[in-house]
Amino acid sequence: MAICCFLAMGSVAQQQLGQRPRVKSPVINGDGTVTFNFYGPQAKRVSVNGDFRGTRGRRLEMTKQENGVWTATTDTLAPELYSYSFFVDGQRFTDPANSYVNRDISTLSNIFIVSRSADDRGHFYSVNDVPHGTLSYVWYDSPTLGQQRRMTVYLPAAYDGKKRFPVMYLLHGHGGDETSWGDLGRASQIMDNLIAEGKAVPMIVVMPNGNPTCNAAPGWWHEGMYTPDGNAFNQRGAKATMEESFMDIVNFVDDNYCTVRKRSGRAVTGLSMGGGHTFGISRLYPETFDYYGLQSAACRMPRDREKFDGQMARLFASNPKLYWIAIGKDDFLMQMNTELRKYLDEKHYPYEYYENDGGHIWRNWRIYLTLFAQKIFK
Amino acid sequence: MAICCFLAMGSVAQQQLGQRPRVKSPVINGDGTVTFNFYGPQAKRVSVNGDFRGTRGRRLEMTKQENGVWTATTDTLAPELYSYSFFVDGQRFTDPANSYVNRDISTLSNIFIVSRSADDRGHFYSVNDVPHGTLSYVWYDSPTLGQQRRMTVYLPAAYDGKKRFPVMYLLHGHGGDETSWGDLGRASQIMDNLIAEGKAVPMIVVMPNGNPTCNAAPGWWHEGMYTPDGNAFNQRGAKATMEESFMDIVNFVDDNYCTVRKRSGRAVTGLSMGGGHTFGISRLYPETFDYYGLQSAACRMPRDREKFDGQMARLFASNPKLYWIAIGKDDFLMQMNTELRKYLDEKHYPYEYYENDGGHIWRNWRIYLTLFAQKIFK
Repeated sequence: MAICCFLAMGSVAQQQLGQRPRVKSPVINGDGTVTFNFYGPQAKRVSVNGDFRGTRGRRLEMTKQENGVWTATTDTLAPELYSYSFFVDGQRFTDPANSYVNRDISTLSNIFIVSRSADDRGHFYSVNDVPHGTLSYVWYDSPTLGQQRRMTVYLPAAYDGKKRFPVMYLLHGHGGDETSWGDLGRASQIMDNLIAEGKAVPMIVVMPNGNPTCNAAPGWWHEGMYTPDGNAFNQRGAKATMEESFMDIVNFVDDNYCTVRKRSGRAVTGLSMGGGHTFGISRLYPETFDYYGLQSAACRMPRDREKFDGQMARLFASNPKLYWIAIGKDDFLMQMNTELRKYLDEKHYPYEYYENDGGHIWRNWRIYLTLFAQKIFK
Repeated sequence: MAICCFLAMGSVAQQQLGQRPRVKSPVINGDGTVTFNFYGPQAKRVSVNGDFRGTRGRRLEMTKQENGVWTATTDTLAPELYSYSFFVDGQRFTDPANSYVNRDISTLSNIFIVSRSADDRGHFYSVNDVPHGTLSYVWYDSPTLGQQRRMTVYLPAAYDGKKRFPVMYLLHGHGGDETSWGDLGRASQIMDNLIAEGKAVPMIVVMPNGNPTCNAAPGWWHEGMYTPDGNAFNQRGAKATMEESFMDIVNFVDDNYCTVRKRSGRAVTGLSMGGGHTFGISRLYPETFDYYGLQSAACRMPRDREKFDGQMARLFASNPKLYWIAIGKDDFLMQMNTELRKYLDEKHYPYEYYENDGGHIWRNWRIYLTLFAQKIFK
């Protein structure tokens, strides 16, 4: 097959290095520990790191065995989707034995899932034997931005082109794109599982690209296979902001899918920059959505306080069904969120608040999606 | 952001290793050469290999510079999509500076594209500023296999749910799945570009999973994140073969998309095992498709020659518009294809034959798709 030439290369390496052991990595052990293995007879130092070590965790050193395979086993891990990388003599690599990776900006990390029961987090992030929704990468026209743009659309398994479904707009953060929630956020797995268990109502999930100067994720538009970095996502030169162009997305979705075309059928939520977008969208289009979710949101209140006061008064006078703010205790945006909550409290505007452990990480955003999806359209 | 912890790890490595240079790799140079770079101050030997070295190419040794960055530059490369890997002290790795990868069975390889003009192969495999079709991962019910199964569907940019479009069924090889043609085969880029330039008519492309014992690609069904290998794709225990269950796919597509529901609107083509499936499908359903494309096909004629003769007589009596056989000079299935052509010649059955350089590789299948798509529905 196509990999013949690589197999041939592998056999050259075998001749040079002697009998090459077959390496399986990672191995999820029955006791909830996880073993990493790496073949590197000539390496001086090999370690593994990732979110299984905690936010500020230190690398787990691996030990070289006689057959040239380095190995390390974790403590018992809580059910979760984890990401990790190997460090071989100071250079970061993906695990050659694990083809499951996620991209975050320009970095690939391997992933694995620990699940021990049918109601733990690992289960909700896994592909289970349940009806599956359709995941589509759809191009739409944005008149406001003057661009053809790409979005990801999840249609629930029950979608048949006849029955109408409500829509959750799910927005990514700085450095992300229309693939982030599907890949890093496990959105289609979470929605499939929540819907199958009756914990969320069947809904359409729309994951647009929130960078007004990009048409699509890196590699999926005509800028080619560039190396994405933070600067690639700035808004300089954009014809409009994400918030100003947002109704292009809603109009396209209402025109092309069987949606509930009213406020009670629309929710918007996002993480970090996307939480900021949600905050802005809630003020710009106060009677368009009934459910808002600010996740670890970049929700700085604007300087023009008079205009802001008017927007917020109009928004809450319209009685949205949910204004949800979620953030982790260690999130670097906590201060900003605390200030917004203080403002809402002073004005007696009703909102729900959810605080958990951890910081500005995907582990939390998957939790927030799982919670938010169960609160809406009911 | 979510990669903060990895950036933090990176800075630890910097302190240990001194000033760490920023590495860009690969660099497509103006003269058509390509430079690979890799930071590995402690490595003893670093090389790069991939299909840019030819099918039986030897690794290109990289040279260590004073700053710890290993580098190598290729000769001028022909316009093409290439894949490669690094070999660091005998271990195969992906390039840490390149987040663009393709998976082939269980192996990730980095990719890059060389293009010098708007009519070369690299151009056809690139995302250009043209109208883009929709790429969807769709679940369907297969009554014959008793499974919920996943397929990839490309809808042309002009698809609006009203106008009817013809359908090309595009089948993968052994070890592949419903993602292979979209990822390794660049099917959506090729179709977008051919249609935009008027070289192919707008059409729907359906890329099903041809492994009757798998519901979907690795990681996308309830078997979890297993390490795929050749054995995972055997047909033992399957309720039916791919060919026997194939009309489940056609019926689902006709029921759920705006298709031309007759023979003149249906083509089927596949590579290797998928070429064998095409060969079988052409005999089982002789008046269902008007266009057949056998690419590097595993097209062994069955032992029951009397039954086979009858099937082939019926097939060619029905006057299909195209029976296309394509294979590379060095393909290990050449003998099988030569025997089939000899049979067709003896029977005076009309077919078209295309032979080019190279073997059983994706480079050829992308070429065959580009050629076949221009021959059908005209």
